[in-house]
Amino acid sequence: MSAPLRGIVAYPITPFTEAGRVDERLLAKLVDDMLAAGVHALAPLGSTGVLPYLSDDEREAVAETVVKRVGGRVPTLVGVSSLTTERTVHHARHAEKLGASAVMIIPMSYWKLTDAEIVAHFDAVARAIAIPIALYNNPATGGLDLGPDTIARLLQIPNVTMVKESTGDVNRMHRLVQLCGEDVAFYNGSNPLALAALVAGARGWCTAAPHVIPRLNIELYDAVTRGDLAGARRLFYRQLPFLQFIVAHGLPRAISAALELMGTRVGPLRAPLQPLARERVEELRTILVDLQVIPGP
Amino acid sequence: MSAPLRGIVAYPITPFTEAGRVDERLLAKLVDDMLAAGVHALAPLGSTGVLPYLSDDEREAVAETVVKRVGGRVPTLVGVSSLTTERTVHHARHAEKLGASAVMIIPMSYWKLTDAEIVAHFDAVARAIAIPIALYNNPATGGLDLGPDTIARLLQIPNVTMVKESTGDVNRMHRLVQLCGEDVAFYNGSNPLALAALVAGARGWCTAAPHVIPRLNIELYDAVTRGDLAGARRLFYRQLPFLQFIVAHGLPRAISAALELMGTRVGPLRAPLQPLARERVEELRTILVDLQVIPGP
Amino acid sequence: MSAPLRGIVAYPITPFTEAGRVDERLLAKLVDDMLAAGVHALAPLGSTGVLPYLSDDEREAVAETVVKRVGGRVPTLVGVSSLTTERTVHHARHAEKLGASAVMIIPMSYWKLTDAEIVAHFDAVARAIAIPIALYNNPATGGLDLGPDTIARLLQIPNVTMVKESTGDVNRMHRLVQLCGEDVAFYNGSNPLALAALVAGARGWCTAAPHVIPRLNIELYDAVTRGDLAGARRLFYRQLPFLQFIVAHGLPRAISAALELMGTRVGPLRAPLQPLARERVEELRTILVDLQVIPGP
Amino acid sequence: MSAPLRGIVAYPITPFTEAGRVDERLLAKLVDDMLAAGVHALAPLGSTGVLPYLSDDEREAVAETVVKRVGGRVPTLVGVSSLTTERTVHHARHAEKLGASAVMIIPMSYWKLTDAEIVAHFDAVARAIAIPIALYNNPATGGLDLGPDTIARLLQIPNVTMVKESTGDVNRMHRLVQLCGEDVAFYNGSNPLALAALVAGARGWCTAAPHVIPRLNIELYDAVTRGDLAGARRLFYRQLPFLQFIVAHGLPRAISAALELMGTRVGPLRAPLQPLARERVEELRTILVDLQVIPGP
Repeated sequence: MSAPLRGIVAYPITPFTEAGRVDERLLAKLVDDMLAAGVHALAPLGSTGVLPYLSDDEREAVAETVVKRVGGRVPTLVGVSSLTTERTVHHARHAEKLGASAVMIIPMSYWKLTDAEIVAHFDAVARAIAIPIALYNNPATGGLDLGPDTIARLLQIPNVTMVKESTGDVNRMHRLVQLCGEDVAFYNGSNPLALAALVAGARGWCTAAPHVIPRLNIELYDAVTRGDLAGARRLFYRQLPFLQFIVAHGLPRAISAALELMGTRVGPLRAPLQPLARERVEELRTILVDLQVIPGP
Repeated sequence: MSAPLRGIVAYPITPFTEAGRVDERLLAKLVDDMLAAGVHALAPLGSTGVLPYLSDDEREAVAETVVKRVGGRVPTLVGVSSLTTERTVHHARHAEKLGASAVMIIPMSYWKLTDAEIVAHFDAVARAIAIPIALYNNPATGGLDLGPDTIARLLQIPNVTMVKESTGDVNRMHRLVQLCGEDVAFYNGSNPLALAALVAGARGWCTAAPHVIPRLNIELYDAVTRGDLAGARRLFYRQLPFLQFIVAHGLPRAISAALELMGTRVGPLRAPLQPLARERVEELRTILVDLQVIPGP
Repeated sequence: MSAPLRGIVAYPITPFTEAGRVDERLLAKLVDDMLAAGVHALAPLGSTGVLPYLSDDEREAVAETVVKRVGGRVPTLVGVSSLTTERTVHHARHAEKLGASAVMIIPMSYWKLTDAEIVAHFDAVARAIAIPIALYNNPATGGLDLGPDTIARLLQIPNVTMVKESTGDVNRMHRLVQLCGEDVAFYNGSNPLALAALVAGARGWCTAAPHVIPRLNIELYDAVTRGDLAGARRLFYRQLPFLQFIVAHGLPRAISAALELMGTRVGPLRAPLQPLARERVEELRTILVDLQVIPGP
Repeated sequence: MSAPLRGIVAYPITPFTEAGRVDERLLAKLVDDMLAAGVHALAPLGSTGVLPYLSDDEREAVAETVVKRVGGRVPTLVGVSSLTTERTVHHARHAEKLGASAVMIIPMSYWKLTDAEIVAHFDAVARAIAIPIALYNNPATGGLDLGPDTIARLLQIPNVTMVKESTGDVNRMHRLVQLCGEDVAFYNGSNPLALAALVAGARGWCTAAPHVIPRLNIELYDAVTRGDLAGARRLFYRQLPFLQFIVAHGLPRAISAALELMGTRVGPLRAPLQPLARERVEELRTILVDLQVIPGP
């Protein structure tokens, strides 16, 4: 990436056909929609994109679809995480070859990894590719919690240049700034922390919300950027119920349900994931009506 | 209180003579110092003031000293918490008689209290006095964690009108605003959360830091109030190491050590509390030198 | 104590008159009942005895009532914990003067204590009295969690000779045995862990259950002592629902309700503690009927 | 399985050649060793066998090697867990075809699964095969914690007939017995809980320790079975340091290191997993010398 990444980093879901195959055509359309709305970057194969539930072939198809469709209009961050180092390197090389701007890696765990193992894992990927690596910390999904000290150490690996922090604790971000300097490129991955994180100095906000409320997401980022605190607070509380909802019920379930309510059929989730329960869909409908995303009854 | 309380609510320590008795004369001087620096309210008998370690007589002496010394120049919030309802009512009545602007109550626990017990506890105090009650939530000291729903319920008791939230999780504050409306009078009690909380809409910041850095505390509050985000962020990161230090090592220990480094002998802590360990004092000295609170070597 | 303490250590509640004063006459009768049933020791002023909710005078009256009533028939362990070291020493001396066999101390916290502070606290009490001290670890009430290493260190203080472990984690007990040798005098304070703890080598079981099911408690202890594993397991599962219930709902609330169901009026709890909710009382009734403690409908 | 499974269920590691391929020949030998020592069942492709780090082909090769080598001498439980339902069904069918006695499934998570999703996941596998399913609960690795109520519900699915509980909390086992009756077939998966679990009624102990101390494992099981409490306690504390060590440092790392110390080269771990750190190996050596597994210096 020539310029540092800033702003709203949009995470597309991975849509499926009724037969359960990746729906590449619809994925391309969803990417178009988010780009048209003005998001600042695209990040396929995140948690939202159900990365760990896809086969290697599917992962490559999703990466290719998104990177090609974006076509360099904005940066692309491709998720390449895998339990083994060998598969992570494989996908990272594939993403680089496709022309991705950067790769994003969450150190996944079954057995808890030692710090030495985590460092060696990132080192191996860093030696295999020339594009930047964004480190993604999310104990709730990956099962490993990297403290600020470990993250600071990983940021010393030459092309590990960005951090997505998803613990939802703004104090972690404060510590990162203290340990790495105020120029540290950290991004917020916990939706309800968007305001606090941007105020604390986050360069961007990694979120699946632009599938549904891209303008509100971008306006919040813009308000903080221009120092409009009152505006930022108002925009934040306006979209907060939606952000809380999608986090509480799982991004793939919640975003898929929202897209269906908005009229786009995105297909079944991959089992064991199931669609949002009916009563939850009604709660979501109320939130979307209130946000004027869909018409009221 | 006629006007709603806003700004920096300063928490004095309780100084002791060498013989271990409350040093009322020095307490009055410490209050004068904080008032002279411009704090917006005084809150004796908080956690910083080692409330639970004092006898009933000592508590009354501290309350009287501070309320009289403030003399109405700013609001006073007097801590009146006790394990039993009867003692809490007793101290609340005493504070009211002294002319305190409001009382602050943390529901202390040995046995975890049920919601019904907590409500009845506050109800009993509310019926006994006519001045406002600030509810204080701090599971790390009080041993009970009141969720936003419970807090919202307690705020329906007529003169329970304020909340001090000290969990250090800004999401709790968001929930309070959502449950009670944006006019809910909540205050931040977790020092390292000062910026995030004020941005989220906190009316004030309850802190012992004005013993040491009152101007930085007030300037941070002022910067957020006038919407100066860049200034607020700079002021916040400037004072953050001090805020983290005093939280990490216990407010009475850390503030007492800071005052001693600044030249004021505040006496022994009450056992089992002991003075800050020697190597910690040196860390603190470095922080204070960096903040230009004390001269460097 | 001449002989090492072993077996069922019974914790009496503190009964109150309708006017809310300690009911010393009833307390003496409750002690008689437990002694008649065969318990191996009596421990007034525990958590069950609502120690922290009593005034100094009330504490002394309870200690005196129980120690005198027991009259040396079995050992007495008197709870003397207080937030301050000075008050703890005061109550420990009083207990010794009364003729208590030992004192029990939970390091209570408002401010989390450092290890050095905890050691100094126990040291101060140990220097002040000549009778043994039992260390009580229960983070759920006291707010401090002493790890096995800290406990092992405290057991090096000359007359700190016993440990009551109430975390409910049998692994803590394994560690104690490993650190201090198999002769370490540890006692179980988590009712549902009674079987696992005795099997792991606990010398006794500290429990309020003998107010209600003393024979079952004693028989379980005896079964483990004589190596009757099948019998112990049967006895354990038989009484487990009662043990789980009293822990889940708070010992003072649950034991008081059980005694009332059994026909003994024990008076109001001290506010903010309230009587067990009505629907819980019905659950408890079912358990007691099943245990044949009270007749069925 | 004709007879209900009882006793020591041994978990083999998956050894690798120096080139990083599964070493089927050595795996067969390790199985032989454990069978010769008298273990009661074999469970390939558990956490110890680094199941999630293997490709589908490797998983099938491991299952085939072990099931064939055991040749019906004892029951085999084959791990078939996968993030997706489709892959889990695939591996379950393969195991059944091979002649496995049962399959073992841990509900793995990236996105936390709802109870409905977990039930549907097990339902799908149960409909696909005719052999019994053992449910495996281990939040520390799988990332999902199934409470006793959820487990009881899953045990109502026709051929989900066994539970391996690895939370290390004996209270979970008590609850299972209460919810499902004393005939519930539960197995302990937390090594340091072996004694408490067997005493609580566990039918067996799932462990990788028989690679190193099979006789001690079997003798502990036998002692509890014949009601020899004193013997069981002695045997338990004897092997506890080893059990604690292998849990603290990760079973594949620790067991591989132990086998190497015993003279069997088991090859590299699969990255990102790395061999036990050198200083840890020395700790382990001391433990093995003390257990007379290897000769002292």
